[in-house]
Amino acid sequence: MSTHPIVEYTSSASWAMIEDKFSPYAKETLAKLIKFLEEEVRPAEKLAHLQIPEDPAQRWKTLKEKAKKLGLWNLFLSKAHYPEFGVPLSNLEYAVMAEVLGYSGFIASESVNCSAPDTGNMEIRSAFAMTEKNVASSDATNIRTSIRREGDEIVINGHKWWISGAGDPRCKVHLVMGKSDANNKDKYNQQSVVLVPADAPGVFGYDDAPEGHCEIIYDNVRVPLSNLVLGWGRGFEIIQGRLGPGRIHHCMRSIGAAQAALDLMLQRVTDPRPKDLWKIPRLRGTNSDLVHKGTVVADIAKSRAEIEGARLLVLSAALQIDKYKAKGALKEIGIAKFVVPSMALTVIDRAIQSFGAEGVCQDTSLAQRWAGLRTLRIADGPDAVHIQQVGQRELKRVPYLTEKTREIQKKENAILEKAGLKTRL
Amino acid sequence: MSTHPIVEYTSSASWAMIEDKFSPYAKETLAKLIKFLEEEVRPAEKLAHLQIPEDPAQRWKTLKEKAKKLGLWNLFLSKAHYPEFGVPLSNLEYAVMAEVLGYSGFIASESVNCSAPDTGNMEIRSAFAMTEKNVASSDATNIRTSIRREGDEIVINGHKWWISGAGDPRCKVHLVMGKSDANNKDKYNQQSVVLVPADAPGVFGYDDAPEGHCEIIYDNVRVPLSNLVLGWGRGFEIIQGRLGPGRIHHCMRSIGAAQAALDLMLQRVTDPRPKDLWKIPRLRGTNSDLVHKGTVVADIAKSRAEIEGARLLVLSAALQIDKYKAKGALKEIGIAKFVVPSMALTVIDRAIQSFGAEGVCQDTSLAQRWAGLRTLRIADGPDAVHIQQVGQRELKRVPYLTEKTREIQKKENAILEKAGLKTRL
Amino acid sequence: MSTHPIVEYTSSASWAMIEDKFSPYAKETLAKLIKFLEEEVRPAEKLAHLQIPEDPAQRWKTLKEKAKKLGLWNLFLSKAHYPEFGVPLSNLEYAVMAEVLGYSGFIASESVNCSAPDTGNMEIRSAFAMTEKNVASSDATNIRTSIRREGDEIVINGHKWWISGAGDPRCKVHLVMGKSDANNKDKYNQQSVVLVPADAPGVFGYDDAPEGHCEIIYDNVRVPLSNLVLGWGRGFEIIQGRLGPGRIHHCMRSIGAAQAALDLMLQRVTDPRPKDLWKIPRLRGTNSDLVHKGTVVADIAKSRAEIEGARLLVLSAALQIDKYKAKGALKEIGIAKFVVPSMALTVIDRAIQSFGAEGVCQDTSLAQRWAGLRTLRIADGPDAVHIQQVGQRELKRVPYLTEKTREIQKKENAILEKAGLKTRL
Amino acid sequence: MSTHPIVEYTSSASWAMIEDKFSPYAKETLAKLIKFLEEEVRPAEKLAHLQIPEDPAQRWKTLKEKAKKLGLWNLFLSKAHYPEFGVPLSNLEYAVMAEVLGYSGFIASESVNCSAPDTGNMEIRSAFAMTEKNVASSDATNIRTSIRREGDEIVINGHKWWISGAGDPRCKVHLVMGKSDANNKDKYNQQSVVLVPADAPGVFGYDDAPEGHCEIIYDNVRVPLSNLVLGWGRGFEIIQGRLGPGRIHHCMRSIGAAQAALDLMLQRVTDPRPKDLWKIPRLRGTNSDLVHKGTVVADIAKSRAEIEGARLLVLSAALQIDKYKAKGALKEIGIAKFVVPSMALTVIDRAIQSFGAEGVCQDTSLAQRWAGLRTLRIADGPDAVHIQQVGQRELKRVPYLTEKTREIQKKENAILEKAGLKTRL
Repeated sequence: MSTHPIVEYTSSASWAMIEDKFSPYAKETLAKLIKFLEEEVRPAEKLAHLQIPEDPAQRWKTLKEKAKKLGLWNLFLSKAHYPEFGVPLSNLEYAVMAEVLGYSGFIASESVNCSAPDTGNMEIRSAFAMTEKNVASSDATNIRTSIRREGDEIVINGHKWWISGAGDPRCKVHLVMGKSDANNKDKYNQQSVVLVPADAPGVFGYDDAPEGHCEIIYDNVRVPLSNLVLGWGRGFEIIQGRLGPGRIHHCMRSIGAAQAALDLMLQRVTDPRPKDLWKIPRLRGTNSDLVHKGTVVADIAKSRAEIEGARLLVLSAALQIDKYKAKGALKEIGIAKFVVPSMALTVIDRAIQSFGAEGVCQDTSLAQRWAGLRTLRIADGPDAVHIQQVGQRELKRVPYLTEKTREIQKKENAILEKAGLKTRL
Repeated sequence: MSTHPIVEYTSSASWAMIEDKFSPYAKETLAKLIKFLEEEVRPAEKLAHLQIPEDPAQRWKTLKEKAKKLGLWNLFLSKAHYPEFGVPLSNLEYAVMAEVLGYSGFIASESVNCSAPDTGNMEIRSAFAMTEKNVASSDATNIRTSIRREGDEIVINGHKWWISGAGDPRCKVHLVMGKSDANNKDKYNQQSVVLVPADAPGVFGYDDAPEGHCEIIYDNVRVPLSNLVLGWGRGFEIIQGRLGPGRIHHCMRSIGAAQAALDLMLQRVTDPRPKDLWKIPRLRGTNSDLVHKGTVVADIAKSRAEIEGARLLVLSAALQIDKYKAKGALKEIGIAKFVVPSMALTVIDRAIQSFGAEGVCQDTSLAQRWAGLRTLRIADGPDAVHIQQVGQRELKRVPYLTEKTREIQKKENAILEKAGLKTRL
Repeated sequence: MSTHPIVEYTSSASWAMIEDKFSPYAKETLAKLIKFLEEEVRPAEKLAHLQIPEDPAQRWKTLKEKAKKLGLWNLFLSKAHYPEFGVPLSNLEYAVMAEVLGYSGFIASESVNCSAPDTGNMEIRSAFAMTEKNVASSDATNIRTSIRREGDEIVINGHKWWISGAGDPRCKVHLVMGKSDANNKDKYNQQSVVLVPADAPGVFGYDDAPEGHCEIIYDNVRVPLSNLVLGWGRGFEIIQGRLGPGRIHHCMRSIGAAQAALDLMLQRVTDPRPKDLWKIPRLRGTNSDLVHKGTVVADIAKSRAEIEGARLLVLSAALQIDKYKAKGALKEIGIAKFVVPSMALTVIDRAIQSFGAEGVCQDTSLAQRWAGLRTLRIADGPDAVHIQQVGQRELKRVPYLTEKTREIQKKENAILEKAGLKTRL
Repeated sequence: MSTHPIVEYTSSASWAMIEDKFSPYAKETLAKLIKFLEEEVRPAEKLAHLQIPEDPAQRWKTLKEKAKKLGLWNLFLSKAHYPEFGVPLSNLEYAVMAEVLGYSGFIASESVNCSAPDTGNMEIRSAFAMTEKNVASSDATNIRTSIRREGDEIVINGHKWWISGAGDPRCKVHLVMGKSDANNKDKYNQQSVVLVPADAPGVFGYDDAPEGHCEIIYDNVRVPLSNLVLGWGRGFEIIQGRLGPGRIHHCMRSIGAAQAALDLMLQRVTDPRPKDLWKIPRLRGTNSDLVHKGTVVADIAKSRAEIEGARLLVLSAALQIDKYKAKGALKEIGIAKFVVPSMALTVIDRAIQSFGAEGVCQDTSLAQRWAGLRTLRIADGPDAVHIQQVGQRELKRVPYLTEKTREIQKKENAILEKAGLKTRL
């Protein structure tokens, strides 16, 4: 079998499906990333937890320097999206790395500068202010924050929330999305994105210390005209480029989280020390291996199957983006987006249950992972929206199907008539 | 239809099943309780939240005085369990009150002195120390904490966790369960319960401020012999009396929580203000009432049905306890215990999803309710244990069924033979 | 515990909820029915199967005579619906009998003349022709069959299908529902019901031998004016009276079927003979009781819990009908209608799986019961319709909830203001 | 996008994952197969149904001659398994063809001589007699049929059932598996396979006309010694070679069936004629596109997602067989075996529901497909067995995980100690 270390994470079967689509550079980088995570990052996780109150810039310093030296830096900035300066990785190749990062847990992505939503440099951080309170803002055409030009300035008014990264003391700039031309007939040209310094007068934020998402009011914030990003009315275009692959990354990290939960469960249910936990009642006093009682083995098998199926779905969506851009992969992205977080929550929930009281406290990573993933069923569009969109796209196959059915029925009638069997109904 | 205000909580159909089993006193008390909760407690909830850092004894003072004056006090101490001093309520009658308390949210039970696990007086509080780390302690026969007599003293050593109430500054006494006679042939006579002052030397606790559950080490704690509760070896008996009805109360509060979540969801999905949240995509530009798109109405219908079915299950278990004591209701209690928390989590999860980002933050009670209920799938025995026990009890019907089948087959054979139709197989 | 034989069928807990609502006559009749089914009907079932090709009137002759002698006849014709001649049973009381009939299997209902849809006499049979092809005819306002008066005659034209009982050679009369006044402003007064002799010229039927449901074309069928039932435009009223309780009977029979499947499963998985069937693989060679491996015990426990919850739902709906007529129990009937058949299918499916290959052939009643129940998710309205209707009814609670919320918030604001804590948001 | 016609069946995303693993021959054959099925086979299906009572050899004659001429013959006999004479197709390549055959319905496989279990020639047919009544015979080591040598003859005694193909009048030979050396220490060498002429004296069969599976008693059947297949004790080896890829073929045909059901559902719910069927009730009289109400669109989206995920699972299992033989793909085969039939049943069940009464009768292929697939949850090993086996294999990862955890904890301790933070617990 293949000896690439990735098979311990993504299974031999998934790897076989995609190995021939990986460049030698991607294979080597993936191996280096796994080594770095196992030898440097995962052993440093507990320390990082205990350092939460400290300055984030200091906490990751050593890990980040090592990562940079190894070339494990900004891997998400792939050539596929940033041809002029990106890392030579396809969406598919980075997707597998995202799974490994998701497996490793909460400090891994930051260690290699791949935390959403930043573009990844060590000095300053940015925040992307899109979501609005009481607005279905996962559909960016609904956004209400107003962006208007006054002479040489741009004036911004709006109420955003769930702004990741805005609470980081290094966050110096917000990319604020708003409506600059609400009457434009093309609703995809009504939005613009403006750079707003985090300390601009009129920016009122509530941070959600230490690692939360902020609620921010922009109250007549003024910035120079040059802070407009790309051009008037190009806000939608900016958001689209980010969200497609971003959703795939979220999904792959979720799969890594699910796999990590399953691996914890496997170790727990076979751990001889707290075996009494599994003392499931028996009718006629047997004394066999307790893990095999009840639904434990079945839960493990189902978790494995669900992870495998979900991973292949996301990988095929990533490949679809590589082949046809995000626009040509909307159905596959939508499927991944509504299938994967629910799947991961189910797997983690089973793992929590296998740990008993230990599973609902901070002694394992399970409760934290669960809570993080729960928001993914809402972030970047609630499940219902993606489910409806996938269903609508599927309904577009109807004219093709109807035509094909008509052709077949025509031939069928001819055959039946020839056989003298045409029915009356 | 009945005009008792309870029908707005438990549905007219459930109430019809049990109304004739309610005494006039119970009906009147229930109506008073509902009025008190709606007029006094629920409006005070937000204030109580903001007062969390303050002295708990002060926070509830006014509500508790009112409750006491109204006779809404210690309602859970029913005659069924404490014939000499209990409130004249059956398990079934109190179960309905527990649902209403669960509906009202986190300060309701405390307001009427019905918080688990206390016996309810305003001056001091107790904690019941049963669960142990790394031990399947929901089956009390597994408990490892040692309780031994040394002369006139009792010496206690053990490591407990998830001890509700022990962090309250008013908590003056722990009821500690441990093994006093590990070699006793009857494994239900090996345990005893001892009263331990919270400030006894050797008690080391980690509190989980402000409202957590404690982890406590008893390190050679010594108490006088007179602190033994009921008598040596009667620990199991004490625990049994508490857990049966206690599980029913937990379940009914959970049903109240589910109903409250559904009621929030109903209001949210029909709220005209954030209606864009429900802007589910459309194939051919319609403009109809958005709540009726997607699975919203179906989710509401299923939630309603699941709440109704679960409530009737718990009520029938409560009635079974009233008729045959907890021992004669073990199957019904077990069913309620594994069905209800999962059901309530499902209903709350749907409500969370209907609120979008608002559902996963502290702006509604949903996230808090969800987290509280999640631990109920583990507390008082994880689901797997109850599922296995119910299954085992069901298997006890086999001898009866086999005998009945044999009788029927005998008659069947006679009939077939008479008709000359006896088959060879 | 209660010694009424019903507790072996409906569980002691369900019986405790309703026992005091049973008249002495109902209790005695129920006990007689159980005895008759166990001693006479179930042993005769296999013979009845082998006699399928024979004349149905002959096959049940002996059983029916016995049943009539015992007063077990037309039990479904309850006083609740037919005050002038009905059997003195409430809907709730008959519901329990329907469960026992459903448990007993396919010849039981007919034996006591309680087969849908007939009114129960031994000489002739009727069929109720309502469902139409390509029409959502479970909502009777959609029906397209035309009924028009021409002088002293009524002329009927339409295409019905799934007409139960029409294939029985004793079926002498069809009750045909159609539109007699399509322009009536009140869409519930547009329909009438007409008696059509089964051999009227113009009735073309395809039977679905030997026990199927018929597809029938009425092609200018003419009957005398006196064949109109109740009066012009009263079709809806007739249908309504039948369907409410009829749905409850269907549901209770389904619960009986589910219980019968569980009882077969219990016997199968403990049967020592084919134990190899349960030879589930083991990691480290144990040799314990094989039924306890895998998910068998959990499947049993879940089935038990689902049956209990579903039964209580249907019983509470039956009681609701007794108290407030079908019109006052629409939500409860709707819930029962979409919950119960799915539940029963799930339980039977698990039982099938426990039997292996034997479960999908005719050696047990499971496959036949499954197929019969599957149509119940469509008959009398597909699940989707009932789910939507229950959801809509639930949404009607919104104005009440909104008002209540407003009152509580008003008090809450007063309390916060008094405490000097009114928030800005 | 790719213009290969397969993308209309397996989706563009699945095809992108595997296209580069297809040889030019396989691509061309696949395209030819699709054309043949659409133009010749599907239009002939209804006729074939009406001809069921006729001689099967005649019914397929024309189609088979055409298929043979096109080189669409015995495609399942791949080089991978029969290197000396097989068709040059990998398991992966044939798997996709199996899906297309499954989509086309019940006469497709036979048309190209790929019906299980035959080796595919037009003149005679065989049956593989493995399954035994009351024996967990999906694990071939449990088989009880006895095969013993007496001089120059082999004597066979046993009771088999569910023998596919044995009822075909062309079936001339049974391959009977039995125990020839029950005391052999290696339980995988105890079995042999013997050729038995279908008309040998002592073979008593009950056919399950017209297309059923037979129950057969072998009562002292004698055949010459030369009828032994491969050699004594090689029965297990024979069975293993067949079952791995055979399970993949079953799964891919199931996926085709699910896709066909979804395509029927898509056409049904958008068919303007019976639109009343979807007249789901509305709260405030809207008149929008009815398919978008209720859960229809969500059901479509979920079906699509489930088909996609399941297909990728099976394709990756097929690829795993190509790379590492069936033995190296047991986990992947097991996952496919327990995931796919359940998934397909769910999708078909939704489609049935969308058709209303039409879905449970013979007017569409849905009911027949459902019934066929239901047996697949039992055939070749019931779900429970595969679930347990996959779970066990997953548990084998524990030693690796434990070792890895230990290494990480060692490093973690060193890091914490260096930071002066080693905790006490």
